Amino acid sequence: MSDKKYTLGIDFGTESARAVLVDLADGGEIAESVFAYPDGVIDATLPGSGVRLDPDWALQNPLDYITAFKTTVSAVLAESGVDSGDVIGLAIDFTACTMMPAKANGTPLMALPEFRDNPHAWVKLWKHHAAQPEANQINALAAERGESWLQRYGGKISSEWFFPKALQILDEAPEIYAAADRLLEAADWVVWQLTGVEARNSCTAGYKAIWSRQEGYPSPDFFEALNPGLRDIVADKMTEEIHPLGAKAGGLTAELAQATGLPEGIAVAVANVDAHVAVPAATVVGTGTMVMIMGTSTCHMVVGDEQKIVPGMCGVVEDGILPGLFGYEAGQSCVGDHFAWFVENCVPAAYERDAADAGINVHQLLEKKASQQKPGESGLIALDWWNGNRSVLVDVDLTGLLLGATLATKPEEIYRALIEATAYGTRVIIEAFEANDVAINALVAAGGLPDRNKMLMQIYADVTGREMRVVGTTQAGAVGAAMHAAVAAGADAGGFDTIADAAAQMAHLQDIVYRPIPENQAIYDRLFAEYVTLHDYFGRGANDVMKRLKNLKAEVLGA
Amino acid sequence: MSDKKYTLGIDFGTESARAVLVDLADGGEIAESVFAYPDGVIDATLPGSGVRLDPDWALQNPLDYITAFKTTVSAVLAESGVDSGDVIGLAIDFTACTMMPAKANGTPLMALPEFRDNPHAWVKLWKHHAAQPEANQINALAAERGESWLQRYGGKISSEWFFPKALQILDEAPEIYAAADRLLEAADWVVWQLTGVEARNSCTAGYKAIWSRQEGYPSPDFFEALNPGLRDIVADKMTEEIHPLGAKAGGLTAELAQATGLPEGIAVAVANVDAHVAVPAATVVGTGTMVMIMGTSTCHMVVGDEQKIVPGMCGVVEDGILPGLFGYEAGQSCVGDHFAWFVENCVPAAYERDAADAGINVHQLLEKKASQQKPGESGLIALDWWNGNRSVLVDVDLTGLLLGATLATKPEEIYRALIEATAYGTRVIIEAFEANDVAINALVAAGGLPDRNKMLMQIYADVTGREMRVVGTTQAGAVGAAMHAAVAAGADAGGFDTIADAAAQMAHLQDIVYRPIPENQAIYDRLFAEYVTLHDYFGRGANDVMKRLKNLKAEVLGA
Repeated sequence: MSDKKYTLGIDFGTESARAVLVDLADGGEIAESVFAYPDGVIDATLPGSGVRLDPDWALQNPLDYITAFKTTVSAVLAESGVDSGDVIGLAIDFTACTMMPAKANGTPLMALPEFRDNPHAWVKLWKHHAAQPEANQINALAAERGESWLQRYGGKISSEWFFPKALQILDEAPEIYAAADRLLEAADWVVWQLTGVEARNSCTAGYKAIWSRQEGYPSPDFFEALNPGLRDIVADKMTEEIHPLGAKAGGLTAELAQATGLPEGIAVAVANVDAHVAVPAATVVGTGTMVMIMGTSTCHMVVGDEQKIVPGMCGVVEDGILPGLFGYEAGQSCVGDHFAWFVENCVPAAYERDAADAGINVHQLLEKKASQQKPGESGLIALDWWNGNRSVLVDVDLTGLLLGATLATKPEEIYRALIEATAYGTRVIIEAFEANDVAINALVAAGGLPDRNKMLMQIYADVTGREMRVVGTTQAGAVGAAMHAAVAAGADAGGFDTIADAAAQMAHLQDIVYRPIPENQAIYDRLFAEYVTLHDYFGRGANDVMKRLKNLKAEVLGA
Repeated sequence: MSDKKYTLGIDFGTESARAVLVDLADGGEIAESVFAYPDGVIDATLPGSGVRLDPDWALQNPLDYITAFKTTVSAVLAESGVDSGDVIGLAIDFTACTMMPAKANGTPLMALPEFRDNPHAWVKLWKHHAAQPEANQINALAAERGESWLQRYGGKISSEWFFPKALQILDEAPEIYAAADRLLEAADWVVWQLTGVEARNSCTAGYKAIWSRQEGYPSPDFFEALNPGLRDIVADKMTEEIHPLGAKAGGLTAELAQATGLPEGIAVAVANVDAHVAVPAATVVGTGTMVMIMGTSTCHMVVGDEQKIVPGMCGVVEDGILPGLFGYEAGQSCVGDHFAWFVENCVPAAYERDAADAGINVHQLLEKKASQQKPGESGLIALDWWNGNRSVLVDVDLTGLLLGATLATKPEEIYRALIEATAYGTRVIIEAFEANDVAINALVAAGGLPDRNKMLMQIYADVTGREMRVVGTTQAGAVGAAMHAAVAAGADAGGFDTIADAAAQMAHLQDIVYRPIPENQAIYDRLFAEYVTLHDYFGRGANDVMKRLKNLKAEVLGA
């Protein structure tokens, strides 16, 4: 043992898990290890039986999580050379809503021979989209009954969330539903396996299972109206005891201590969600700064002192991001995906050759060319709805629009217009928050995009009129988890008493600050006004052409 | 001499002239010859002096036309083996408005040493776009004064037309204006050189110089208000004696007969415009069928018994297309150019490779892939305004729009949507004519596109709900000119008395008939309704975002 103290953060992603050992003195990342899940994303056939899955399905094998935990933690400890006695805690973050059925003793139903060949016995991954009919049913009933919780979620809940998935199990595999003593987030199940304690976290409960500190879950009456068999789901298969983030779930079991080389009984924090855990890792522990996780899509998070209803947000949850505060989440469903689509489908061969000649990729070539343009120079504007609109319109049936093309329009101009469109989409979200008294004075970006595209960052600063900074680590999820582990361990054990204390010591931003450039802002204000007019015209019912075209498409393909 | 009779049509294009010797018995094309103008399109520096031209300029050397005439006609006669005594007439068709200043004896001012280095002494080619300020001035004054002729031209005349170009000469080179005894179409100047007779044709006078049989040219008062120096332009430098198409201008001069091997004195018809001359070559000699010349842009022509004012048409001219009838012209400014832009800028390398592997070009690959889609399947709709909108909105500041894209959208779907958009644009034009009692029951296409893209033809038939056929010759301009030559020669000389007689004998359509497919029509009716809503929203003032973006672009680039 030394004076140095460490915690482990383990980030459970879609394809793999990554453990990072973090130094509590300065947030330094001492060692890391990645392990791809042996069964990966299960979206074609069930392992073993070969049972075929429908197209919208996406499952995981929960036993892979435990294998990943043992493998990565052992590897990190070995690689780091750190005395395991100096590791005072660990925490995990996870994709969500990624949920599963289990027995009362924690055994996943898929691990029982009688259920192994039933897809509903496995983990439903966040991107399992086969519960859309159930989501539609829940939304329609909630609207009809005027359920007060609906407005906390922008008026619509997603098919990715907990109750649509649970209802799908009941609808399609009542025997699995009946056999499940527990229905829970895989994140909470993993913590249960690590500690022997079932301790559900406030983040997934709030954002994915419609729970709030004041009102709890939807009522048994609501569930009964949905499906009589679902009436007692909370009482029978869930729990109303919800733990704030940074709370200690329990101590590491002897078995897993032995399997990994960690000390038995060290603090294990309640689980967290990958995006939300990144907020304190981005140095944000209070109101006024929005954290944006920018990857294929963007997740926006900000906290406030009070609960406000912001139209079109994904959710507001007390203790959902930081304890004692109301965490707000919003989303844009098409960001990195947008640019990837463009590069794959719309960039001519000559550009591919030029990029290869210059030893850069096509994104870099486009950024280089587009950087030479001034705002407004292309004459283009786009609506960033290639994958619908999450916030603030909450409408998956909206589609993309590009306006202003001429025979002189070049690919890099379209590329820049698509980037600008996502920045306008972010500004719409910011303005919705501010109009409802949730202040947003500055932005911090995390995720894959910010490091790759400086032009994009500057455009966001110019369009939003706010300083934009970038989180200091490329592993904001794992580092954020490690920070929560330090809080779960507590100051007495060498950790911290609060996440604010942990952030002060462990979280960093990159030095670069993207500041709004006034000339650009003036032009983007005018372009944003055009965006808003188009946004409202096509998005708020004046001309539902996008939906009619989608319906026609479905009709033609169904015919 | 034999029983066979022939005429020559010579098509003066932008880059070259093409002579075709045609058999009057059946329209058979016996021989052809092409000659590229030595000075080509002069858009950078003047030949000889190297005087630099501004970007919007485009000139030609009129002496090139005579060289081209001599060269191609001699070559055709030699190649054909036809006895020149059996050639009974010739006619030319030309780009327009392509105009020039000349002395009273026909000498082009550019041929005089004192004027050779002055760009204004040369031919202003149709695509000389430097007279936009003059066009704006004419349009504003005409609107202000309520000039009755303005509505015959869709409410706006183009910078390409005769008087903007003439006014530019007066504005910028008054010495050239003063020295010019004649200002005239290059087409009429060439006929003058061939015959020694200045015989101006009704087509260019009507469509390009605001002349009508009833009202003549704009009044001296109007010209005076525009610029006092322009007051007597018609009396001093033009003529009010205008000849219908197919009229004989005169006989071929001895000098040119000798230079080419043609008989002296054979009939030379008055000149014609390349598009308009194609109408009878497309078998159309009466009302009810619209001829579409489909190339980089589309020119639509149809005739009626009476003069109607059709909003947004390019012009209505009595005797303008067929003698004794009112010729209507409309236009779409971006058709082939549209697809070429797409292929150059928006098709990924993988498609280029696939096309090369299949031994076809990228257009053919896209057509092949897009042909497999059903109408409505892509969910896309576009406004075909990449180069503004000619008819019916007459607005160069409109720009392109694509709506309905998703992350699953493929290049061939966009390609098809752009083709469909041009078909919707054509339907808007057809409906404008029909709403004003100009019947359009069927379509005949000519130009470069129809033979290259069968899918496009079928889409046009489906969208317009009309049978579409294709002209039988790829040289509709030259063959149409040869038909007019046969009329100028007359039946007594072995030609024809009317263009209808000539068409009955000499004009043909391809066998293929594109008939509307009812299922497709039903879907396209719904898509067209969406197109019209967007067309009117963006094109008629509800949301002038396209213009504001263009203005912003100009502001940014000017700053």
